[in-house]
Amino acid sequence: MSGNNIFYAQSGGVTAVINASACGVIETARAHPELGKVYAGRNGIIGALREELIDTSFEKKSTIAALRHTPAGAFGSCRYKLKSVDENRAEYERLIEVFKAHDIGYFFYNGGGDSQDTAHKVSQLSQEINYPITCIGIPKTVDNDLPITDNCPGFGSVAKYVAVSIREAGLDVASMCESSTKVFVMEVMGRHAGWIAGAAGLAAEQDGDAPHIIVFPEIAFDKEAFLAKAKSCVDQYGYCAIVVSEGAHYEDGTFLADQGTTDAFGHAQLGGVAPTLANMLKDALGYKYHWAVSDYLQRAARHIASGTDVEQAYAMGKAAVEFALAGKNAVMPTVVRDSSSPYRWHIGEANLADVANVEKMMPRDFITEDGFGITAAAKEYFAPLILGEDYPPYKNGLPDYARLQKILADKKLPDWPE
Amino acid sequence: MSGNNIFYAQSGGVTAVINASACGVIETARAHPELGKVYAGRNGIIGALREELIDTSFEKKSTIAALRHTPAGAFGSCRYKLKSVDENRAEYERLIEVFKAHDIGYFFYNGGGDSQDTAHKVSQLSQEINYPITCIGIPKTVDNDLPITDNCPGFGSVAKYVAVSIREAGLDVASMCESSTKVFVMEVMGRHAGWIAGAAGLAAEQDGDAPHIIVFPEIAFDKEAFLAKAKSCVDQYGYCAIVVSEGAHYEDGTFLADQGTTDAFGHAQLGGVAPTLANMLKDALGYKYHWAVSDYLQRAARHIASGTDVEQAYAMGKAAVEFALAGKNAVMPTVVRDSSSPYRWHIGEANLADVANVEKMMPRDFITEDGFGITAAAKEYFAPLILGEDYPPYKNGLPDYARLQKILADKKLPDWPE
Repeated sequence: MSGNNIFYAQSGGVTAVINASACGVIETARAHPELGKVYAGRNGIIGALREELIDTSFEKKSTIAALRHTPAGAFGSCRYKLKSVDENRAEYERLIEVFKAHDIGYFFYNGGGDSQDTAHKVSQLSQEINYPITCIGIPKTVDNDLPITDNCPGFGSVAKYVAVSIREAGLDVASMCESSTKVFVMEVMGRHAGWIAGAAGLAAEQDGDAPHIIVFPEIAFDKEAFLAKAKSCVDQYGYCAIVVSEGAHYEDGTFLADQGTTDAFGHAQLGGVAPTLANMLKDALGYKYHWAVSDYLQRAARHIASGTDVEQAYAMGKAAVEFALAGKNAVMPTVVRDSSSPYRWHIGEANLADVANVEKMMPRDFITEDGFGITAAAKEYFAPLILGEDYPPYKNGLPDYARLQKILADKKLPDWPE
Repeated sequence: MSGNNIFYAQSGGVTAVINASACGVIETARAHPELGKVYAGRNGIIGALREELIDTSFEKKSTIAALRHTPAGAFGSCRYKLKSVDENRAEYERLIEVFKAHDIGYFFYNGGGDSQDTAHKVSQLSQEINYPITCIGIPKTVDNDLPITDNCPGFGSVAKYVAVSIREAGLDVASMCESSTKVFVMEVMGRHAGWIAGAAGLAAEQDGDAPHIIVFPEIAFDKEAFLAKAKSCVDQYGYCAIVVSEGAHYEDGTFLADQGTTDAFGHAQLGGVAPTLANMLKDALGYKYHWAVSDYLQRAARHIASGTDVEQAYAMGKAAVEFALAGKNAVMPTVVRDSSSPYRWHIGEANLADVANVEKMMPRDFITEDGFGITAAAKEYFAPLILGEDYPPYKNGLPDYARLQKILADKKLPDWPE
């Protein structure tokens, strides 16, 4: 019989609302006396390998409640993908050994596709070695690329941030364009899919509103068409506000922003497509430009989080605990959309096996025929996800975010040789 | 006798709250039957030269009220500095001719140092040619560099934006630093003075809080000291969050962003001091980095405007009308600080002659001895300016900003040959 303690870990790039999921897990677990402690991995799954388990029972009720309005990963996250069981069985065995040593019977893994894959494997292996762990995935990714779930917690808040930002910057450029800046380029995240770039399109409600052009990673970049469209916007509206995905690329796959460096996963490290496009416009058309790269700001912007997103992130954490208590295993709660307008949704369930390593792309019919805008179908999908404001409390003019004690449980095992 | 209509113009780079000043002008003028119409220059002073006068009397009361929560320049602004009277007397005479044709007796110029200079000259020349115009300056600049006034409307909201943003991004980096990003660099505005960069320092309330390093334009950049400080932050806290002013430069005056370096592909490295510093850290210390350039986003961010700033911007517009009614001329309302904690201020008055073309620099004692942080004196100065939240109303999950009709008054004069 496995223990009744819980291990919760945050994985991959953090979001404005991943802590709301943590809050949902911890508050729900605390309400169930049949469950033990919630341990959180210090810096994600690395914390389990190193037996660095943050004992959340030391955190005050008010601190846990404050996680709901605190961005980023309060317990630390990591970019660390476990290899396959065949390649590195020792890592999986170590995880289970640590779980065993701390009477952990539940593993909640809060992350994207890679993480759901890991949770799935841990579940399988734990059965095999007779220390069955209940593994529940909690969806999280600003990339919105998990399958089955209608959308991913974390995405709605980035969507709101980018739509608000391009609306505001668009008004700024409109003010200046007669004598100064004519084009403004805002770079947003989204390496493989244009979900984030597309959501910025919500800012355009009337003809002439920013953004006028969206450059998607789904559409091979056509320089001539892009320049022609920008010129026509400037001719018609006096200015042109552009949103570009970091993953924008040419027909041959070369990223517009390729810097020739790679990250720990071997992915090309991107950055700088906004200045690339801005310079292209200046060279070809002579326009004065400005550009912005919001980078981490967009995914950390809890101050402008979507109310829908916060609510769903919390609900996913809560559902994970409830699924576990109901005896479910190797599943992930999902958002099921019942209706877009008025927006209605409920919690569904996906098997981790079906979620792991499947990337959900944006449908082609979300992008206009010319490749530079979003369709009515896209707007219908995106609109509910940015609804509602969920402001954090402020102190001294700044958001008052949770500060945790992060007290580690005593170690019981030998060090893990890294 | 000059007319009783008002000409109001927005000048230079716009802000999150310049329309709050416009709102203060128009609402106050409407409350005084002895005043006529408020005409707003289409795209600032250019609108006066071209006789493109937006007749604000066509705008609904609710639209004018909405200006208070609408960012950027609702009537259009411009970067257009009138030459000296000696060099281009015709421009000044044209302005006065347009004012005369439309019974304008009051000129309210909402801008920075250059604009106050222009307002001052118009005032002088109008006396000379016997059509005396009452000229009142309304302070506005995110750069916070106007003299006499304690602070400038527009600055407090940028200050709040950058402090909130670096706090949020700092939490993000802290979450990721164990296995991924170690340094984060955020570039902020401020070519000549570090007011904006300095205000970001408010985010650091406890030891170890972001930002850990601020790079000011007031301090010649010392690469070795910078790298040593960044390394010591990463060693101590696991990560380093950096705010850099766009005006950061070396001892010899060369901007950091202007290095003529090339990337891995031999392309000229594109503008941006943030990527420059990030690459410097990577090259010297091997740290994985992220960087952001918020550019217009920071000054257009009405969604996170400072309550103090909105209140003062409105009050400056209101005071301008009241000054005019009181028979004052060639003056600008100012913010006079009575107390920092609790924050108390009142409206003062400066002569345009004393404001024009004087740049207020940040005191050296606002910057720590090592040149990378702000002192207690700076915090005392900055803190009240970001106090209070003044959220715009939202519709469909997005800020509901004013849309003006911008109906032009009929032209009465020949075209202005540009």
